[in-house]
Amino acid sequence: MTDKTTAYQRLETQFHDICVLEDTIQVLHWDQATVMPSGGAVARAEQLARLEVMRHEKLTAPGLADDLAAASEAAEMDVWPAANLREMHRIRKKAVAVPADLVAAHSRASSLCEFAWREARPADDFSAIVEPLGELLELTRAIGAARGEALDCSLYDALLQDYEPGASSAYIDPLFDDLAGFLPDFLEDVLTRQTAAGEPLSPEGPFSTEAQRALCRQMAETVGLDFDTARVDESAHPFSSGVPEDSRITVRYNEDDFGEALMAVLHESGHAMYERGRPEDWRYQPVGRARGMVLHESQSLLLEMQACRTQEFYHWATPALRDAFDGDGPAWTRDNLLRWATRVERGFIRVDADEVTYPAHVILRYRLEKAMLDGDLALPDLPAAWNDGMKDLVGVVPPDDRQGCLQDIHWYSGAWGYFPTYTLGALAAAQIFQAATASDPTILPSIQQGNFKPLMGWLREKVHGHGSCHATDDLIHQTTGAPLAADAFKAHLRQRYLDG
Amino acid sequence: MTDKTTAYQRLETQFHDICVLEDTIQVLHWDQATVMPSGGAVARAEQLARLEVMRHEKLTAPGLADDLAAASEAAEMDVWPAANLREMHRIRKKAVAVPADLVAAHSRASSLCEFAWREARPADDFSAIVEPLGELLELTRAIGAARGEALDCSLYDALLQDYEPGASSAYIDPLFDDLAGFLPDFLEDVLTRQTAAGEPLSPEGPFSTEAQRALCRQMAETVGLDFDTARVDESAHPFSSGVPEDSRITVRYNEDDFGEALMAVLHESGHAMYERGRPEDWRYQPVGRARGMVLHESQSLLLEMQACRTQEFYHWATPALRDAFDGDGPAWTRDNLLRWATRVERGFIRVDADEVTYPAHVILRYRLEKAMLDGDLALPDLPAAWNDGMKDLVGVVPPDDRQGCLQDIHWYSGAWGYFPTYTLGALAAAQIFQAATASDPTILPSIQQGNFKPLMGWLREKVHGHGSCHATDDLIHQTTGAPLAADAFKAHLRQRYLDG
Repeated sequence: MTDKTTAYQRLETQFHDICVLEDTIQVLHWDQATVMPSGGAVARAEQLARLEVMRHEKLTAPGLADDLAAASEAAEMDVWPAANLREMHRIRKKAVAVPADLVAAHSRASSLCEFAWREARPADDFSAIVEPLGELLELTRAIGAARGEALDCSLYDALLQDYEPGASSAYIDPLFDDLAGFLPDFLEDVLTRQTAAGEPLSPEGPFSTEAQRALCRQMAETVGLDFDTARVDESAHPFSSGVPEDSRITVRYNEDDFGEALMAVLHESGHAMYERGRPEDWRYQPVGRARGMVLHESQSLLLEMQACRTQEFYHWATPALRDAFDGDGPAWTRDNLLRWATRVERGFIRVDADEVTYPAHVILRYRLEKAMLDGDLALPDLPAAWNDGMKDLVGVVPPDDRQGCLQDIHWYSGAWGYFPTYTLGALAAAQIFQAATASDPTILPSIQQGNFKPLMGWLREKVHGHGSCHATDDLIHQTTGAPLAADAFKAHLRQRYLDG
Repeated sequence: MTDKTTAYQRLETQFHDICVLEDTIQVLHWDQATVMPSGGAVARAEQLARLEVMRHEKLTAPGLADDLAAASEAAEMDVWPAANLREMHRIRKKAVAVPADLVAAHSRASSLCEFAWREARPADDFSAIVEPLGELLELTRAIGAARGEALDCSLYDALLQDYEPGASSAYIDPLFDDLAGFLPDFLEDVLTRQTAAGEPLSPEGPFSTEAQRALCRQMAETVGLDFDTARVDESAHPFSSGVPEDSRITVRYNEDDFGEALMAVLHESGHAMYERGRPEDWRYQPVGRARGMVLHESQSLLLEMQACRTQEFYHWATPALRDAFDGDGPAWTRDNLLRWATRVERGFIRVDADEVTYPAHVILRYRLEKAMLDGDLALPDLPAAWNDGMKDLVGVVPPDDRQGCLQDIHWYSGAWGYFPTYTLGALAAAQIFQAATASDPTILPSIQQGNFKPLMGWLREKVHGHGSCHATDDLIHQTTGAPLAADAFKAHLRQRYLDG
């Protein structure tokens, strides 16, 4: 027993370092996306690649395997250490399947392709990115193939594990099929109703970056961040990073439409609040880390789409928005601003999409990324396939690749398998928000006062504070009384867009 | 032979990772000093401590010792690999003397004390920092004692090795004694002459931060940086960091005196240019790293004090300064601006000191830090000892600790043993600049045109490009024809302040 305890303690020490390496990698990524001069790209790629390999070396060290075996024989463990040990096994199993050289090559290719994308996107030059993207795709396939063999699953399911442990196409497909069956007719109904009611008025800009920056800060503070422990910066693609006491979220400012930054800061603040609520005692252990991107996205979308597009939120936010931009007139009434924030339209850009069309954007990417990985879609054909898919699924065709297949950072940074988590997260967000507001009737009236404490308190207790102790579906079941399904999401859409 | 080559190759792989860890640690330090919210301090301390330990673990791994032994038996090696191997030995020897726990504790204490200093300094509250500083001092002494035993040198000399390999009190003392004998009378003569000539006029502010920022950018570009591969930011204490293609320099802006930021940007650009000139083929090997802080400071001071306080520089810079601040009138003539930039006065702040009084600031810190380490000066007595020393050495007493013993970051971040390198660097700067201008007569006329290419080309060839291939004194001897001495520095001072 003493021996086994020691093995577990050694594991905690090793995984502490692994977690610190992951946090460090995040600092480097944040720096790269927000402040790094372009000339630093190659050196940064080298730093990231070597740190990834150091993490991999720690995970694949023979001593770790021995300690895992020894610790697993311990007769009794408390819930948290037992879950921690389970996570250690899972993470190691995923790592040992992939050779260190491939980890390094993939990391380096990701950094360089991401950097090339930062130039190709504004230049609308897909051809410039085909070669680095092709190299990255090949390395990603090699990782997926190696890991799929070890985990006895498909290449695609193997890649999903980087974003959502336990996810699979078999899990995703029925949920997406359910939505795909529901949404097209629903969208038609919503658009018809919206047209009949009259389109909402757009607040007229320009909206200075300075004023938007102040508004974003106010919004982040309102939902629970404070600026002794957080920053809001700008990047080409909004994201959330950092550690619980040093949240780093980013947005991008469009002086013609403050709604983009407003929704981004609420979305990214939801991610940051999840990280901040992770169990403090397990901060540097696998069980104390975020469960996966489905819950992560559920928290960002819960804030952005569920809580902050309600009558209650706009009751509080309308005066704040008017103050921020000296807004006045019919576009700046509470009713119009809420209708404007919840307007539905067939658009080109995923991150700006409303929640009715958003799943179609994700389903397109899900199909395309599987086709790329299966070899059914050659990269030079991606723009055309994208545009065809947009026509089928969303009903519009982007005028250029910048607003088409170049818009998202994911593939260009090596993240094949990430996209489905957005829509799974949207389903989870609806289901969890429904449970939260049913369980605590003060949540919505508090939001009407600009007070997010009841909501965030509930989420911390029911979701954030569990870290990786439970599987995603178990946590959702435990928190909402049912496994993840599309029902709550569909009910929410009907209520907001047809019955509201 | 094959076996020995392999050992050396394995060493290169290991040291590549060690260098990447060092670069990563620099990114974290830069982030901490410039953008990190205060709440991130504890997590950052943890990251830095664990990365320091990972570096230490790599340096002290048994395999490394075996490979070093095997590689050293190789019959013939080229100059660069041989120097690289020598550096590997040196670095490992320094590391193995100190246990990993002490490395971690010292790193953590450094981060936390530095963070406390960031609050104590503006609050002028030395008492608030005594406890963390005391802990840090004890850990620093423990490192110095352990390493001194292994390297067979004094505790202080052991600490010097972190900043200047091969330095010792025995090397420093005669040079400092030479200066201490020369400077007091010289200072009197300079002040008398300056009074007789009439004090220069101070350009009158306020000088907007925005205009200073633009000026700093222009100056950095003029001496050789470009903003695809560099950034200039703000921090409480100016510093230079980053990697060759991603220089990160910082300044601080005083709206009453643009000279502070101007001199800081030239100083830090000198550091950055040194890093940028390191030998590209050896970027991630010990022999390709900067030699030490004496050469580093020689490069910053060569730019700040030698090249950029000349008639030639002000010929070019005067119109730029007038443009930057809409300067006009008698304070803005070339003659007055140069006299203002080279005015000598007994002041409180080291980083703002002229080159005549600067060594006295350093000698004070050298004496005090040795006394602290020897146990002859208790920390609560530091402010009084500081003020006494300022009276003796500089001739003025600071009105508060903010302008006294709290002004510099060094001790508060664990850097005992760093200060002497400033004055050794000033001597080297004078000696190298004398050699450069004698060897290439186009250097000064080019500076007069705002063209630093001849100077930087010469420095790259003679200094930067040698990395750590030679010992500091050997490089200086080879570059200037003589070992480091105070002669050139004294001749420079006489020429500029008495004969000029």
